[in-house]
Amino acid sequence: MDLKRVAKDTAKTLISYLTYQALRVVLDQLRETDPPRAFWLNSFSSRHSIQDGDAYLEELLRVKQDLAFRIMTVRQHLAEEVTDFLPEMVCTGIQQSNMEHRRRHLERITQLTIPEPPTPPEQQTDTEA
Amino acid sequence: MDLKRVAKDTAKTLISYLTYQALRVVLDQLRETDPPRAFWLNSFSSRHSIQDGDAYLEELLRVKQDLAFRIMTVRQHLAEEVTDFLPEMVCTGIQQSNMEHRRRHLERITQLTIPEPPTPPEQQTDTEA
Repeated sequence: MDLKRVAKDTAKTLISYLTYQALRVVLDQLRETDPPRAFWLNSFSSRHSIQDGDAYLEELLRVKQDLAFRIMTVRQHLAEEVTDFLPEMVCTGIQQSNMEHRRRHLERITQLTIPEPPTPPEQQTDTEA
Repeated sequence: MDLKRVAKDTAKTLISYLTYQALRVVLDQLRETDPPRAFWLNSFSSRHSIQDGDAYLEELLRVKQDLAFRIMTVRQHLAEEVTDFLPEMVCTGIQQSNMEHRRRHLERITQLTIPEPPTPPEQQTDTEA
């Protein structure tokens, strides 16, 4: 189990995800203050995938540098405000979700197994007809 | 800027991502110890998307509970070992990446614009031949 690689990959994924969240914040702000620019940014983002946040910013910098700088500033702010809470939220979230999966699974396997009918009634009627 | 919503969404995305990383760990282990099961799990995972980690686990629990439990244990372990490092890694990563974008952009706008040649030499030779 290569924990160092997992940590590195996870941080990279998280950076891209926060870039996407920053784009959403900027889009929401522009919809209030400057709808034509919101429309432009939305249409740019439908043509350029934000799956890779840095490639997206690189493209945006070439055509609308101020919007790219704004998303960069917002993602840094989001990272500073949000990441400190993540370790606790993720660990608790996984514990709860695992417990819930185990509970549901236990319920499922301990209840009386009623075998399903071999063929649904409509099909039986069809074959008999 | 709804920081609470961003934190919640990010934690959820991170849980799904760690479920995917846990699947990769289990697949690697099985490839060493039990190739037929690795093959089975790989083919199951190509049919059931792990984009939503909990929906994936729910499906896997119905058909191979031991593998599902194993992935659940590994993702909890990964969360405990890895998440503490993420805030620092992500904040530093975003700072560095923003700085790099700004540097490259500054270079681009201050340098003399040299137009690229219209066609690369190999293609020219091809058309001439």
